Amino acid sequence: MPASDHRPASLIPGGAVFPHRHLTGIEGLEPHEIAFLLDEAENWIAANRERGVPDKRLAGLTQINAFFENSTRTLLSFEIAGKRLGADVVNMHAAQSSVKKGETLIDTAMTLNAMRADVIVIRHMSSGAVRLIADKVDCPVLNAGDGRHEHPTQALLDALTIRRRRGTIHNQRVVICGDVLHSRVARSNILALTALAAEVRVCAPSTLMPPAIERMGVTPFTDFDAALDGADVVMMLRLQTERMSGGYVPSSREYHLRYGLTLERLARAKPDALVMHPGPMNRGVEIDSNVADHAERSAITEQVEMGVAVRMACLDVLTRRARRVEGWA
Amino acid sequence: MPASDHRPASLIPGGAVFPHRHLTGIEGLEPHEIAFLLDEAENWIAANRERGVPDKRLAGLTQINAFFENSTRTLLSFEIAGKRLGADVVNMHAAQSSVKKGETLIDTAMTLNAMRADVIVIRHMSSGAVRLIADKVDCPVLNAGDGRHEHPTQALLDALTIRRRRGTIHNQRVVICGDVLHSRVARSNILALTALAAEVRVCAPSTLMPPAIERMGVTPFTDFDAALDGADVVMMLRLQTERMSGGYVPSSREYHLRYGLTLERLARAKPDALVMHPGPMNRGVEIDSNVADHAERSAITEQVEMGVAVRMACLDVLTRRARRVEGWA
Amino acid sequence: MPASDHRPASLIPGGAVFPHRHLTGIEGLEPHEIAFLLDEAENWIAANRERGVPDKRLAGLTQINAFFENSTRTLLSFEIAGKRLGADVVNMHAAQSSVKKGETLIDTAMTLNAMRADVIVIRHMSSGAVRLIADKVDCPVLNAGDGRHEHPTQALLDALTIRRRRGTIHNQRVVICGDVLHSRVARSNILALTALAAEVRVCAPSTLMPPAIERMGVTPFTDFDAALDGADVVMMLRLQTERMSGGYVPSSREYHLRYGLTLERLARAKPDALVMHPGPMNRGVEIDSNVADHAERSAITEQVEMGVAVRMACLDVLTRRARRVEGWA
Repeated sequence: MPASDHRPASLIPGGAVFPHRHLTGIEGLEPHEIAFLLDEAENWIAANRERGVPDKRLAGLTQINAFFENSTRTLLSFEIAGKRLGADVVNMHAAQSSVKKGETLIDTAMTLNAMRADVIVIRHMSSGAVRLIADKVDCPVLNAGDGRHEHPTQALLDALTIRRRRGTIHNQRVVICGDVLHSRVARSNILALTALAAEVRVCAPSTLMPPAIERMGVTPFTDFDAALDGADVVMMLRLQTERMSGGYVPSSREYHLRYGLTLERLARAKPDALVMHPGPMNRGVEIDSNVADHAERSAITEQVEMGVAVRMACLDVLTRRARRVEGWA
Repeated sequence: MPASDHRPASLIPGGAVFPHRHLTGIEGLEPHEIAFLLDEAENWIAANRERGVPDKRLAGLTQINAFFENSTRTLLSFEIAGKRLGADVVNMHAAQSSVKKGETLIDTAMTLNAMRADVIVIRHMSSGAVRLIADKVDCPVLNAGDGRHEHPTQALLDALTIRRRRGTIHNQRVVICGDVLHSRVARSNILALTALAAEVRVCAPSTLMPPAIERMGVTPFTDFDAALDGADVVMMLRLQTERMSGGYVPSSREYHLRYGLTLERLARAKPDALVMHPGPMNRGVEIDSNVADHAERSAITEQVEMGVAVRMACLDVLTRRARRVEGWA
Repeated sequence: MPASDHRPASLIPGGAVFPHRHLTGIEGLEPHEIAFLLDEAENWIAANRERGVPDKRLAGLTQINAFFENSTRTLLSFEIAGKRLGADVVNMHAAQSSVKKGETLIDTAMTLNAMRADVIVIRHMSSGAVRLIADKVDCPVLNAGDGRHEHPTQALLDALTIRRRRGTIHNQRVVICGDVLHSRVARSNILALTALAAEVRVCAPSTLMPPAIERMGVTPFTDFDAALDGADVVMMLRLQTERMSGGYVPSSREYHLRYGLTLERLARAKPDALVMHPGPMNRGVEIDSNVADHAERSAITEQVEMGVAVRMACLDVLTRRARRVEGWA
């Protein structure tokens, strides 16, 4: 582990505990609670790389992944995380779901709850749907992305990647570029990175920039070149195809010209700046291949690896109360 | 467990054994065999609630869930049941299936059999398809719903819910209301409840009432208010959307007016009558929200919980012969 | 095990080891390496039949089944194989996949790799896609069928079935009949069977016969009756529906007339000739029901059983290096 600004969990003021029953968002988490989850995730990185005797601490627990919106990476990551910890993992796909038969979201939640799930991971197309479900069930709920609201484990894995690669998050100049308006990834990242005292800049065409974004403690840019100046981290967002055809962006070629990350443009950032992308990438649109594949600068596949570790940490921490393990308030 | 009319399994005349290789329906089961499965399920309720050391008695066994018809709740319930018991659970979805390539049902059955499944759970849109498969394979087959024929685990979980909440099934006045004609849930429930000596009334518009239903030992009603008189249990069936547009029912508003369960209407039943629904519900059509969510009267989420317990019991009992465990004829 | 021409693995010249990191095809395997995999599979047949104490040697390992093309049998077979060995098995379906969002195949591969998969099983519609992925990841890759290229585990299970039923593969006259041109099953079988010194005949309408197929060491026939003369094994290929409507074949009735395996036609083969089919079958098109279901001659369901055993062997052997178990170069 590189030198870092975080102390062992037990020394963190406020205690190495996590008092929240659910993880519906980064909002509401204290900086030491975010750091605690990152510390917990650190433990799983080595375990995943070395793969010694499996640690099946969730054996006997039922994890339901209720995905109302399609997903490959996030679902796969949560499924692998749960199975590595020994949980009985069950996927509920929206396509097969009672939702199609007109069942209300609350009824679906009550059903999952009645089956005695020990943890429910939810992705939903509506902002706030996860919170709604969390209020109705007896077990911890983990938000795997809800509408334009939050995607907390993505923000945690991004923070972990930055902390490991840059040594610290404190005072790092992080540029988040792309469709900030519709992105739950951007929102959760802004919340996590500002909480951990990074200097966050957001960059987007004015049509894709949320109004009054300054109130979140970030500096908005419409000029990507200006935003990149002296950056430690450049975090590119995926340009959803529906934006390209939705009048937000003239064309993907135009977008690439103004907001695509090229090697030339990257030269405006610090010489050792880190390049990140939550994936899946549109190569040649928001990011060039020689940047995405850059051996020293790109942390894109590392982000995926951190994702599994972060999700193992969250699943472990959130089920501690039920397992009567310390680390909970 | 509340006071009840069932005796410990070992005292049941005929012995605490289950001589059937498959569970394709309630038809053909003796009353003491139904009671035996309910008794077995009781054991799993506490286990699921307390979640101590996992009981992985099906470890090493392969359970294939072959679902030729979409399902969320039932599939999820069987998957959770199997995984809690330690089975290797594999789902076969019709959408991905060779069936689409024109393979016959028997060939599909032979294939699952050749893979050495230890138990096969089948849902199929055709009545009798499960029996057809059961005849061709070497392992126990569990019917998870076939056409308009049977859905035996639903009837068992409903019977268990009634027995626990009302103390007994004997002489209970149970009203089953809705699309009795097309409902395998109604059919299996009628078979189970009459076997256990309940007084069963069925209520439906005449277009949705099976001819000569009296022969099944039940009393038919077209007037819901009359049917509800003095009821101990009101079991509402889901109104399938296709019925509404199929000429069976003038409109969902009309249906609600005549056959929707409202608080006012429920007042005709006994003061402590139980409300049940197999889910997913059409709130405002066959059942009002204040009835569905009634704290004392509604047993709807409890039914879901009983579902997992009943399926664990069935999976356990049916695989005993292969595991050389007692409890089999 | 019947008398056979294979010696115990430890006596095979060249050693009982498997030096290949991946299994992308039969091409490139030495005859003793093929025999080694068959020997390993033999062990699992009895284990699957008897089902004693489960052998969970892959416990703690993550197996990702990345299926970019629909499949029921093969996916089910690999899933059961992995779960029986105790692996954490995760399915990635193309339908839910980032591929749909325009992600490149290499990026998908890098993602699976970053999640620290221990073995990846891939089916893809493009010939060579599996090799492409294999080159990019750190873990063993198993080809579950790629385009018209190869389907090595199918060839291994077919070879195992022949070896067990006929005692040997050496000098057996095997007729492969059907759409040889588009069939990866035919290609892998030709490579495996010629490597093991069978006499292989291929039979197809001239529109479905690959040019210069003789170079693969087989004899081409367009007359099925002539091809069948003195055959030990008749391996029928599935006639894809798209071929029937694609101008390759006048009609399925016409096809059946010239290339369908009937009892009359089978009489031209040896009296104890074996009938095989990779499934799913088009009964009445490439094969008659009384042939497919022939108690003594048909080995079709046995093939399915061998499939699970072969896949268990491949998963075991390919992960030995990671598990530091002998049997690897």
